[in-house]
Amino acid sequence: MKVVIIGGVAAGPKVASKIRRLDANAEITVIEKGVFLSYAGCGLPYYISGVVDSQEELMETPVGTVRDTAFFKNVKNVNVLNKTEATAIDREAKTVDVVDSKGKKETLQYDKLVFATGAAPVKPPFPGINLNHIYTLHGVEDAEGIKTSVKDRKAKDTVIVGGGLIGVEMAEALSEMGCRVTIVELLPQILSMMDADMIVHVEKYLESKGIRILTKTKVLGFEGKDQVEQVNTDKQSIPADLVILGIGVKPNSQLAESAKLEIGESSGIKVNKYMQTSDPDIYALGDAVESIHQVSAKPCYVPLGSIANKHGRVAANHICGINDEFPPILGSFICKIFDYSVAATGLSEKSALENGFDIVTCHAPAPDKPHFMPTMKPILIKLIVDRKTRKIIGAQGFGLGDVDKRINTAAMAITAEMTVDKLANADLLYAPPFSPAMDNIITACNIVRNKLDGLVEGISVEETKKKMDANEDIIILDVRSPKELETMKIKGSINIPLGKLRNSLDKLDKNKEIITFCKISLRGYEAYRILKANGFKKIRVMDGGLLMWPYEK
Amino acid sequence: MKVVIIGGVAAGPKVASKIRRLDANAEITVIEKGVFLSYAGCGLPYYISGVVDSQEELMETPVGTVRDTAFFKNVKNVNVLNKTEATAIDREAKTVDVVDSKGKKETLQYDKLVFATGAAPVKPPFPGINLNHIYTLHGVEDAEGIKTSVKDRKAKDTVIVGGGLIGVEMAEALSEMGCRVTIVELLPQILSMMDADMIVHVEKYLESKGIRILTKTKVLGFEGKDQVEQVNTDKQSIPADLVILGIGVKPNSQLAESAKLEIGESSGIKVNKYMQTSDPDIYALGDAVESIHQVSAKPCYVPLGSIANKHGRVAANHICGINDEFPPILGSFICKIFDYSVAATGLSEKSALENGFDIVTCHAPAPDKPHFMPTMKPILIKLIVDRKTRKIIGAQGFGLGDVDKRINTAAMAITAEMTVDKLANADLLYAPPFSPAMDNIITACNIVRNKLDGLVEGISVEETKKKMDANEDIIILDVRSPKELETMKIKGSINIPLGKLRNSLDKLDKNKEIITFCKISLRGYEAYRILKANGFKKIRVMDGGLLMWPYEK
Repeated sequence: MKVVIIGGVAAGPKVASKIRRLDANAEITVIEKGVFLSYAGCGLPYYISGVVDSQEELMETPVGTVRDTAFFKNVKNVNVLNKTEATAIDREAKTVDVVDSKGKKETLQYDKLVFATGAAPVKPPFPGINLNHIYTLHGVEDAEGIKTSVKDRKAKDTVIVGGGLIGVEMAEALSEMGCRVTIVELLPQILSMMDADMIVHVEKYLESKGIRILTKTKVLGFEGKDQVEQVNTDKQSIPADLVILGIGVKPNSQLAESAKLEIGESSGIKVNKYMQTSDPDIYALGDAVESIHQVSAKPCYVPLGSIANKHGRVAANHICGINDEFPPILGSFICKIFDYSVAATGLSEKSALENGFDIVTCHAPAPDKPHFMPTMKPILIKLIVDRKTRKIIGAQGFGLGDVDKRINTAAMAITAEMTVDKLANADLLYAPPFSPAMDNIITACNIVRNKLDGLVEGISVEETKKKMDANEDIIILDVRSPKELETMKIKGSINIPLGKLRNSLDKLDKNKEIITFCKISLRGYEAYRILKANGFKKIRVMDGGLLMWPYEK
Repeated sequence: MKVVIIGGVAAGPKVASKIRRLDANAEITVIEKGVFLSYAGCGLPYYISGVVDSQEELMETPVGTVRDTAFFKNVKNVNVLNKTEATAIDREAKTVDVVDSKGKKETLQYDKLVFATGAAPVKPPFPGINLNHIYTLHGVEDAEGIKTSVKDRKAKDTVIVGGGLIGVEMAEALSEMGCRVTIVELLPQILSMMDADMIVHVEKYLESKGIRILTKTKVLGFEGKDQVEQVNTDKQSIPADLVILGIGVKPNSQLAESAKLEIGESSGIKVNKYMQTSDPDIYALGDAVESIHQVSAKPCYVPLGSIANKHGRVAANHICGINDEFPPILGSFICKIFDYSVAATGLSEKSALENGFDIVTCHAPAPDKPHFMPTMKPILIKLIVDRKTRKIIGAQGFGLGDVDKRINTAAMAITAEMTVDKLANADLLYAPPFSPAMDNIITACNIVRNKLDGLVEGISVEETKKKMDANEDIIILDVRSPKELETMKIKGSINIPLGKLRNSLDKLDKNKEIITFCKISLRGYEAYRILKANGFKKIRVMDGGLLMWPYEK
């Protein structure tokens, strides 16, 4: 069996190695346009900031072996043609035309062909786009360029175009290198895969770290002599001696397209669950292909190393006759921004509504460990649950504490199509150094269950603020203790501590709408139940309490 | 509705508060023998070591309110009778007899009765058991006594009887207070809920931290004048000026038993999924009851705060007519010992075999983040998988890195009865600061899949060592690079680096049994596949590689 793999950076070498382990006799050839093989692209921001010492570390195996062509030949018995490009495919003849950097052409025969062509950064034709010191972050060369820009040229004013994952990771990296950083984002928020009510807090945190964020701002072009000096937007001009384009990537599917393979609406190559393209002898994987979202059942494009690795195994298995299937994905992602973890899985509230789901959500802010542990740090978890089936369909989180564990747990619940009731009673690990007795994700489930069971009705901070701004005749009832009021309070709220509420009911007008809250709205919920039991009709609890309140306090 | 709850420490107040939120008119009375209400017993080791500053923190709500009888009355409208003991139950008349600390007797009427009587530490009748400075760790008083023992008396030689969770947590606490600590354990290992092949490494780590561990050692008694001075065992006598008994706890089910309620074989009160005892108007929960294990379907006794809290909600819901069910448990637990996390969920290999499962296991040692991230730390994950159904039935882990997240993920997989194939493709979170592209738990799944699919056969380090000790004529083939050999190697092994193996096959005798390995046995697996493809017959890979080898290197 002759296997030709186009692409030698991530998914390509993975599929080659796995096929070799399954089939000792297969003739495996990897074609790679660049020089470098099998490097960890996700590590580039950490190489730039200096967290990772040398670029070699990104290219080496865990025991320090560089993965060059000799390595692939000796260890894997895989032929790698680097500095070589695939130019055309003849599906009838089952051949690939390649050309090397010296112009030498060759035609390779295949039984199975694999597209591991990856993705390329989006680079719109802005005026001035070709000025010096405007970078995307795609390969080792970009990373070196950015590093040099900052270190040797003492670049200080950096502008990041696009507030996606690369954008925020680079904001941290450049800020820690001493740069002034501005993120310019076209949409109303950064990290648009997450809901605005969560991201408003992430943006505030970034701003507290000195990152300037300009949303709803359109880049018009770049100016400068040879080197970029200024970024022009529809709102203002921003001085810049370094620009990072983090507008996203698009799948390298041109070769597949010219071979008349089916391309998805995301412009990723269409594959079935075995990673086969519309030609069963041609596979595609990694950042070049389109995925299916488990919850929406719609095509989506999620170029992540975790997914590409799994693709590699499934494709290799199928090529070698072993049953394996790549399932629909959840779009799970996480990023570290300074000391914050920000993560999500499944559908956001926004995308759930766009997909026609009738949902219930909750916001659960709480320490990630028992409140008495000095190692505890606050996190905020949001759950999105389908009202009819009570299944969890999305989860988001951010904070200084352990968000990772909770969103992974939610990802498992969504994978298993678990109801909020089942997750609420899952036997998760507990000890004070790790989690509260009721883990944050379980508390979040219970808040949703209370809503689903009609025990409480919530109102968002946004809606509450709107009512207050419109001077509606409502009671904003803070049930915290007087001591807590000293540090922060919502202007216009009244205070009756929870312990005094039962004896103060005559102070509240039964005909008025009441919104209860406390720091996290747990006592707010108790207050709701007390008022409900005493004949108050129009009561709601402010979701997430004061900790979700992003406005002036 | 009159609800009487016996026990005011953990599950009792939980069920009282929840009932109040559901039913504004219920008359709720909590009876508590001691003075203190609703404190976080799990935090005691951290209060003793000084990680937690004051015992008040363990008794306060997150915003600093002490949960005393006035708090329960004002905030929850719950009557608490503390310093009051329940002495008898008349199920016909639906009454509870109580007596307070002054000897005043009373009979309370109930519609629903709840046993939240907790558990008591096991205190065998050893000679000298009543000497001073022999403590269990059950309540605030014990914690104060231990603290005083160490601080004021300058206790230095502490002996912990029992190497369970309390034992190892106290070993860390006392060691950090400057004590010399010896753990005496009757069984062949500490933390006997986990497999010996994992715990051997945990014991080595504890010993590296200066903790002495004496296994297979039976305590015979204590000696001293008024205060304990010596612990006598069947092996040796150990000087001791402080002794902690961590032999376990037994459920407080005497009152339930005398009321002729059904008691389980673990001596915990038997309950159904609604937390009802054999009398449907009497509920029991928390450390007083027996659970059912999801995988073995057998009764088990797991007294943990996480479980007790969930019980409280289910019982309260059922009492108030809301549908809710407490499912079978997994026996999940985690503990921090110095910088190690040690955790498990589901069945151990040992208990799986005892329960008749035909299983496949794996050991996956790896960094918890990509190897190039300087924040990465090693962890070791073991999976236990049912061969027939390919379902995950158990997982264990330990190490300096993030074990917690991986074992929680496994707990979710077991809860959902997921196969190893499904978990292997789960869309878990990935970014370099959090996890490798293929998360450790996914790698563990893939090792098991390779075994299930007949691609590789493993052998344990223990079995390998036995063969070597018996001088069997086998080849122990180390495929690491020569440089790696410098730091550690197995005596009697031969070295052929993986990259040279294909050209060195003539150096190996095809008729001999070969055991391959490397640092973590990933290259060992590649070597296996190369040998297999070249006609070698009797090959196995040493599970987990050198990192699992606990013997002399």
